[in-house]
Amino acid sequence: MLGFVSPLPPHLARGRRSRSPYAPRFRPGGAMHLRASNAFSSHQPVHSAPETLLRQSDTSAHVHSKPVGAIDGVPPVDPAMRARFEAMIRAGQNDICAALEQLDGSGKRFREDAWVRGSDGGGGISRVLQDGDVFEKAGVNVSVVYGTMPPEALRAATADSAVARNAGYAPDERVPFFAAGISSVLHPWNPHAPTMHFNYRYFETDRGMWWMGGGTDLTPAYLYEEDARHFHGTLKQVCDRHDPAFYPRFKKWCDDYFLIRHRGERRGIGGVFFDDLCDREPARIFQFSRDMVQHVTEAYCPIVARRKHMAYTEAQKRWQQVRRGRYVEFNLVYDRGTVFGLKTGGRIESILVSLPLTARWEYDSVPQLGTPEADLLDACKHPRDWLGCEEKAGVADATA
Amino acid sequence: MLGFVSPLPPHLARGRRSRSPYAPRFRPGGAMHLRASNAFSSHQPVHSAPETLLRQSDTSAHVHSKPVGAIDGVPPVDPAMRARFEAMIRAGQNDICAALEQLDGSGKRFREDAWVRGSDGGGGISRVLQDGDVFEKAGVNVSVVYGTMPPEALRAATADSAVARNAGYAPDERVPFFAAGISSVLHPWNPHAPTMHFNYRYFETDRGMWWMGGGTDLTPAYLYEEDARHFHGTLKQVCDRHDPAFYPRFKKWCDDYFLIRHRGERRGIGGVFFDDLCDREPARIFQFSRDMVQHVTEAYCPIVARRKHMAYTEAQKRWQQVRRGRYVEFNLVYDRGTVFGLKTGGRIESILVSLPLTARWEYDSVPQLGTPEADLLDACKHPRDWLGCEEKAGVADATA
Repeated sequence: MLGFVSPLPPHLARGRRSRSPYAPRFRPGGAMHLRASNAFSSHQPVHSAPETLLRQSDTSAHVHSKPVGAIDGVPPVDPAMRARFEAMIRAGQNDICAALEQLDGSGKRFREDAWVRGSDGGGGISRVLQDGDVFEKAGVNVSVVYGTMPPEALRAATADSAVARNAGYAPDERVPFFAAGISSVLHPWNPHAPTMHFNYRYFETDRGMWWMGGGTDLTPAYLYEEDARHFHGTLKQVCDRHDPAFYPRFKKWCDDYFLIRHRGERRGIGGVFFDDLCDREPARIFQFSRDMVQHVTEAYCPIVARRKHMAYTEAQKRWQQVRRGRYVEFNLVYDRGTVFGLKTGGRIESILVSLPLTARWEYDSVPQLGTPEADLLDACKHPRDWLGCEEKAGVADATA
Repeated sequence: MLGFVSPLPPHLARGRRSRSPYAPRFRPGGAMHLRASNAFSSHQPVHSAPETLLRQSDTSAHVHSKPVGAIDGVPPVDPAMRARFEAMIRAGQNDICAALEQLDGSGKRFREDAWVRGSDGGGGISRVLQDGDVFEKAGVNVSVVYGTMPPEALRAATADSAVARNAGYAPDERVPFFAAGISSVLHPWNPHAPTMHFNYRYFETDRGMWWMGGGTDLTPAYLYEEDARHFHGTLKQVCDRHDPAFYPRFKKWCDDYFLIRHRGERRGIGGVFFDDLCDREPARIFQFSRDMVQHVTEAYCPIVARRKHMAYTEAQKRWQQVRRGRYVEFNLVYDRGTVFGLKTGGRIESILVSLPLTARWEYDSVPQLGTPEADLLDACKHPRDWLGCEEKAGVADATA
């Protein structure tokens, strides 16, 4: 789900050009570490993150334009939403990276790569911490994309939803769009410490289509019930503040989305996931998205803190690597964000930073019944009701 | 490209049920090594490979049926072709596995898993050697599939060729098909010893459509010109015996096919690749396919023999792992055989045995100019004319 990436809020960006703690380091060689290959030459690296990745016409000067919105059942959206969303995700990127550096404890800082996409507007800021003490690979990206996509990419990006159907694009018509998002995957070394992913994004296309989507989900190699309850419980608390129907609906959506279909198992134990959300005032969905971004560290960091120094065996590390292989399978075969990024010429290094540093595929590797490995696999095959709240809520099929 | 898999020729199968050196071993436990999970319950494991994986109606009893073929420009095919192709690939599997065991030298044997698909006919035989002395993972599979596929799977399996267009299937019509194939990926431990893949397959659908496809290609982490010339030279010799136009055409097709589009690089240094071949008598294409299968060991084994004991550094092993990551990217995102297998409910362990035992994704990892790593990457980005024969042959676009 990486690859959606976007910019610093103006109030946080003051003076940042010269003083950023994340200014790119010039790596003077050391085999295999020079610069990103540029299969898509439209990504131009810049020395420091610009104040905004938006087109000038989307910044504050245009806040007073009238709201747009032309599709039945979709509330109009204020043109200022682009700048608000960019500001929110850049603040999120700063806060989350700071929390992760503290948790890592190695003194290593995230490396930052910023780029813009020529004169068309858009760009991104990737931050990656590789080879830390706690994290083997942690990526937190923001990006802003102005582009056009083939209709199949629109379908891949939105599921086959009412939103996409209502817009009435011809099969061969390219669809102009704006997208801004924050996206992150965090892979710790310790097999007892889970991987976490989150992604929050805002889409607009012309003709008044807009929606927000996102999610936060956990992928452990070993299952600790208290971790699962803490993670899901934190997400539920945030959801409940906005709509009590959100958690049960988005929890199920998450279980459905992260399914590795050819294996009949999910990549992890889920969390929440939603897409195409445009069923209420944009400001309310924005507030919900912001609240979710602001609570990913609360959902995740305490878990890593209590697992990061646990002893583990070589066999446990191997099992983690096998599960990392499943993560790769999901991301490369099914993940809409990845497919969207690859199809729209996204920055490859930013999209694929979601992949673990290392992964493993053993032939016919299935855990023995009764082992902790089998317990995790069972939870991936049969999603559990961690908080004991699904039955009373009467969960409906969120993806139908 | 694994997942197409099929059965022993009757003349080799005598008495095989009880004496097979490849009879499945019953592994009494040892964490993570029990049995394949069966996401698709239609795969029924059998204790030894059956004499044939064909439906009874496709075996010798029906050899005297009249040839079928109804599409303009496609020669008719003898109904005995199914049995001939099965016999050929099962002989190939035996011979190739024997050669690889000798090359590995560990005394380890390929483990065999055979399965059938209920009463519908079809099945497969996977042979895997994992953790050998030379090979970290070597898979050689045969399979026979009777099924129906959605038209998009037909397009994925055949490229968007004249063959598919001529058959005139409606967009939502499921297409009955027969497929038999041999498929293999061989990953050695030593970063100086290249990975090889080959795959040869025969397809029939109703309405007289049939075609053969296949290829043999090499994926080194370090480039040795003498290896590249030996590999391509051997393939060219075989091709030239059947049609002097084959090698230049199929060499280019291979370079075009194994492109990792989002990176603008091929996964390796190619070989030959062809698909949808039905432009001459089926018997002639069969003879060509058989000749190719019979020469994969000659193309590959001498290279591994001279590289398998070379010393290597940790950095070289890491570079191999990064290239293995690219291999995974190609197979999961672009490979038609893999996509076809996943979409038609193939046996997952057999399809994904093509993935390396381990792989690595480093953020923004690009080799320094002038290094052997950069040389390999250059050959992946700009396919080379290893035998100095492309210009004089006037290569046309084979995939157009």
